[in-house]
Amino acid sequence: MEKVNVDALFLGPKSENHAFFKELLSFMMDEHIHWRRNFHPNDPEAVTLSDMDKTSFRRTRERTREVLLRLSDQLKAKSLPWHSPRYLGHMNSDILMPATLAHMAAILYNPNNVAFEASPATTHLEIEAGREMAAMLGYDPAKSWCHITSGGHLANFEGVWFMRNAKSFPLGVKAADPEAVAGKTDWELLNLSPGQIFDLVAGTRRAGTFDAAREQSVRYTGVQGGRLGRLLVPQSKHYSWDKAADVLGIGVDNMIKIQVGSDFRMDMDALRAVVEDLTSREIPILGVVCVVGSTEEGAVDKVHEAAAMRREFESRGVSFWIHVDAAYGGYTRSIFLDEDGAFMPLDKMKRVLHEDDVVAGDVDWPKPEVHAAYEAMAEADSITVDPHKMGYTPYSAGMIAAKDSRVTDLVSYFAPYTFTKGEAAANPDMLGAYIMEGSKAGAAAAAVWAAHQVAPLNVKGHGRVQGRSMEAANHFYASLTAQEPIKAENGRCYEIVTLTSPDFNLVNFVFNPEGNTNLDVLNRLTLGVYNRCSYVDGPVYYDSFLTSHTEFTVKDYGDAPIAFLERMGFSADDYRDNPDGVWVLRACILTPFLRHNTTYDKYYRRFIQTMKTILTEVDEA
Amino acid sequence: MEKVNVDALFLGPKSENHAFFKELLSFMMDEHIHWRRNFHPNDPEAVTLSDMDKTSFRRTRERTREVLLRLSDQLKAKSLPWHSPRYLGHMNSDILMPATLAHMAAILYNPNNVAFEASPATTHLEIEAGREMAAMLGYDPAKSWCHITSGGHLANFEGVWFMRNAKSFPLGVKAADPEAVAGKTDWELLNLSPGQIFDLVAGTRRAGTFDAAREQSVRYTGVQGGRLGRLLVPQSKHYSWDKAADVLGIGVDNMIKIQVGSDFRMDMDALRAVVEDLTSREIPILGVVCVVGSTEEGAVDKVHEAAAMRREFESRGVSFWIHVDAAYGGYTRSIFLDEDGAFMPLDKMKRVLHEDDVVAGDVDWPKPEVHAAYEAMAEADSITVDPHKMGYTPYSAGMIAAKDSRVTDLVSYFAPYTFTKGEAAANPDMLGAYIMEGSKAGAAAAAVWAAHQVAPLNVKGHGRVQGRSMEAANHFYASLTAQEPIKAENGRCYEIVTLTSPDFNLVNFVFNPEGNTNLDVLNRLTLGVYNRCSYVDGPVYYDSFLTSHTEFTVKDYGDAPIAFLERMGFSADDYRDNPDGVWVLRACILTPFLRHNTTYDKYYRRFIQTMKTILTEVDEA
Repeated sequence: MEKVNVDALFLGPKSENHAFFKELLSFMMDEHIHWRRNFHPNDPEAVTLSDMDKTSFRRTRERTREVLLRLSDQLKAKSLPWHSPRYLGHMNSDILMPATLAHMAAILYNPNNVAFEASPATTHLEIEAGREMAAMLGYDPAKSWCHITSGGHLANFEGVWFMRNAKSFPLGVKAADPEAVAGKTDWELLNLSPGQIFDLVAGTRRAGTFDAAREQSVRYTGVQGGRLGRLLVPQSKHYSWDKAADVLGIGVDNMIKIQVGSDFRMDMDALRAVVEDLTSREIPILGVVCVVGSTEEGAVDKVHEAAAMRREFESRGVSFWIHVDAAYGGYTRSIFLDEDGAFMPLDKMKRVLHEDDVVAGDVDWPKPEVHAAYEAMAEADSITVDPHKMGYTPYSAGMIAAKDSRVTDLVSYFAPYTFTKGEAAANPDMLGAYIMEGSKAGAAAAAVWAAHQVAPLNVKGHGRVQGRSMEAANHFYASLTAQEPIKAENGRCYEIVTLTSPDFNLVNFVFNPEGNTNLDVLNRLTLGVYNRCSYVDGPVYYDSFLTSHTEFTVKDYGDAPIAFLERMGFSADDYRDNPDGVWVLRACILTPFLRHNTTYDKYYRRFIQTMKTILTEVDEA
Repeated sequence: MEKVNVDALFLGPKSENHAFFKELLSFMMDEHIHWRRNFHPNDPEAVTLSDMDKTSFRRTRERTREVLLRLSDQLKAKSLPWHSPRYLGHMNSDILMPATLAHMAAILYNPNNVAFEASPATTHLEIEAGREMAAMLGYDPAKSWCHITSGGHLANFEGVWFMRNAKSFPLGVKAADPEAVAGKTDWELLNLSPGQIFDLVAGTRRAGTFDAAREQSVRYTGVQGGRLGRLLVPQSKHYSWDKAADVLGIGVDNMIKIQVGSDFRMDMDALRAVVEDLTSREIPILGVVCVVGSTEEGAVDKVHEAAAMRREFESRGVSFWIHVDAAYGGYTRSIFLDEDGAFMPLDKMKRVLHEDDVVAGDVDWPKPEVHAAYEAMAEADSITVDPHKMGYTPYSAGMIAAKDSRVTDLVSYFAPYTFTKGEAAANPDMLGAYIMEGSKAGAAAAAVWAAHQVAPLNVKGHGRVQGRSMEAANHFYASLTAQEPIKAENGRCYEIVTLTSPDFNLVNFVFNPEGNTNLDVLNRLTLGVYNRCSYVDGPVYYDSFLTSHTEFTVKDYGDAPIAFLERMGFSADDYRDNPDGVWVLRACILTPFLRHNTTYDKYYRRFIQTMKTILTEVDEA
């Protein structure tokens, strides 16, 4: 396989590929126009030239033009310049040209992937893209299940739907067909491993008691308080997990937030303590969520340790679902895979990254724990991964993958026999019957599929895009940590302090005035810089640098930020006593165009220069 | 206000408006290209001409071109010709040119409406489009709340989320602040009207006990079996309601399906009987769902009678949430409104429809009950309405509207004070905090907004698009019912029998061989015709007519289809004894291009001609 050239994949910060983009768009538009005209060529024109000559026709066209130009004006005046290397804020960047063009072309045909009948072209593309994703995640594409969702929220909801309905099924079997689980206590039934649960699904299907058992499970009876146990999530979890606990009827009180360490990864000792405690009280564990690429810190939880812990507890009769929320970090698994899809050992991987110029030779990424965590994703029961984040596709496209496709039996709307009939699992007639959502844009599937086709999910394809991001983030982190205090235009000096070394592509940092020991002063300065480098101060088109920010409070993060604060000379109590905690600037570095050998140095110098001005303005205000 | 000209709103069955479409698309594309280039003009090119000269660059471009042309081929080979008046199947048609162009233009900027910070342009468009929708539904835009969802599923889920969390709130108040509801029994607290519940929300907020009360409600404690009562839905409900009961933790067993009549509307006597029965057993009613435009029949439930029934029961101390699932029929409310947004009395409305040529003079639509039902939608507590159905916008865009915006307090993620701060309700910073989903395409908001701007939601604007559909459906129904039996090429005669007279734009029908009294023969023929007129027999590009189908069984519909079957000479027992029930062909007639005075007659003749061939092929097979 040839190495993909990343420069050819994006429209580009200066619209470098505009001619190619427009040519292809125009061609696909013409294809569509003539596809319409060629359908039953003898059918009459519905709108004749004399119809077009009417005043009302011309006025409606004028109105259309006027509205669309107004839209274009709004978009230009207010949109964020995600295409520029000056944008280091949220998880946004220029997006893949093949994905954008595929989306735009498909919208013309407007397929609806709710049912094969409404999308004979794009349903297959979704299934194909899903299999590629499953393989990238380390799942067996033939035995797993992966589809597109409207985003990470819905993928996380679906993960909870999976684990909730699976956890409940053995109790349904006990109610409907007690012989099938004879001798098992409720505690044992609530601690079957996911694989054992799916074997029970298969067994009851063979025995003809599946429907009756499912009808005694949570989907029919409703949630019964905390009976199915607790959901364990790290403090760094995305806010969609609170919503998931609410929406799925679990209740936020049944979700336990596990302390994160000073690296903002879930503290595995804290997780173990909670698992031990719940086990000792015979409270089941509905599931454990690991985050791969936390939203605010880019931290990668040690999935391998969570998986090992589950194996250990299984030997003691305790099991639970593991979901990996890799909405942000998921696509990056592509860079760990060789062109045959094999997960590379760390030493080989680093060699390949450097030899093939996937990342610059001075970048020592990934850390061993991050490498191990990515490898262990394959052991998770379900994984959220968003194409519209590190997949560089347009909004909206999330994905959910389940390791064992038999889970569809527990969430599908139709009776299981309709799946078997016609080998629906291999060629689904009706995605809407298997998934949480219904109608959905086939255009999103076309976009994801086209991206995978042009840049396959390995180190020679999509991995090269990921490499640009990881390189830029590591360079930015290295520059910030090596940076001498900045002397701003006001004559004051500001020390740059980073939160953690990046597991991934996110760098949090602050500017602290030299000698400052007042946390409120630091927070005011951080918020001031953020306001000047974001939409808050109005349209951003003339801004020289754009970023985002985040807040760590005792309530949400416990003591995790203390090590960072102590490096600046603040005390633990400064933080614990401050209801606002600490604010930091947050740079998700997705841009593929901060390459060391071309533009990185220029942009970094401009960034420092810009900050000298902004710090002066903000600190004087 | 000027009347919109419908012919100017679509690309058209023969791409009649192709030049205009391409010109605007190209212009907006250029706007974007130069917007990128104009951002910090002195920033360097990230991809130079010598970069573009590399072999790998050219190869990646070639690969992109090859993949996109393959996509275009797939789309052309397999897509459904929704642009053609020959397509009378699912809820699909050509879509509004302003919406498609707006979507395509916005995708280039790729805004994410999860947060204002990620979409300073399109968040406002979503809020504005939501207010227009709220007004169209008869809500006060200043007091209600309406936003875009990924589709009807999520809108219905959100409706259940509203009613579930609202129903639970008074019990939370009792637990946290018993004085506030002193003297009320649990039964009384479970029967507060939605307005009373929201007053309690406001009251506890004033008293400072809101957070504590909410923390004792279902979102924190989780669902407790059927404690919050039963959800009442008509049998004709969309399958997303089963999913909603599962996903939201209510349980399908707590959803009661109300018998529909031979008109496929919810039988209001049956509804009353269930409400009486539950009341007598002191089982609360979580909510009642009315369907406006049922998926399979286009039936419009008598919302006005449901609303009156609630008023009556409220005088007896029993109340419940009313949700209208108008995913399909919602946008059609635009045709009931005059240009000032006032709901027109029936006689005036019909006069306007005919005088302004919104529908042809021979069309007597709507029925008085349909008119009354649309008027009463304003009394519902929440409404689902899909722009991507009768709003003629691209996938995916649904909408949910709530009559009382205070409901956001019960589903929002953040503490209520963050909403008050900065008047978030008037200018939300972060849509993701109020709604079920997170990241979502700002492009969908741009599309809906542009459609509303060009064709405002009243009888002079969008109503004229609706009129085309209603006219064509009523004409098709009239033609079918007036049709003499068709003599097919095989010499046999086939009677056309319609299911019901259309409330809306959906016509179900069958071809019954003259003299046939065997229901299996009818079903085989119907399925045979469907197979020949759908994707089932492979690509449809050379098909002369395209439709969909649906099935009515005793299990799902009780005796509702019997009147229809008796008209053909079948007995009630023929149906009741048949596990397959009865299959019908199902034509959702959304096309704006079956106008009587131009093309309708031609297409109808071609349809009959096509059927003579197809019936022969199928009946001989």
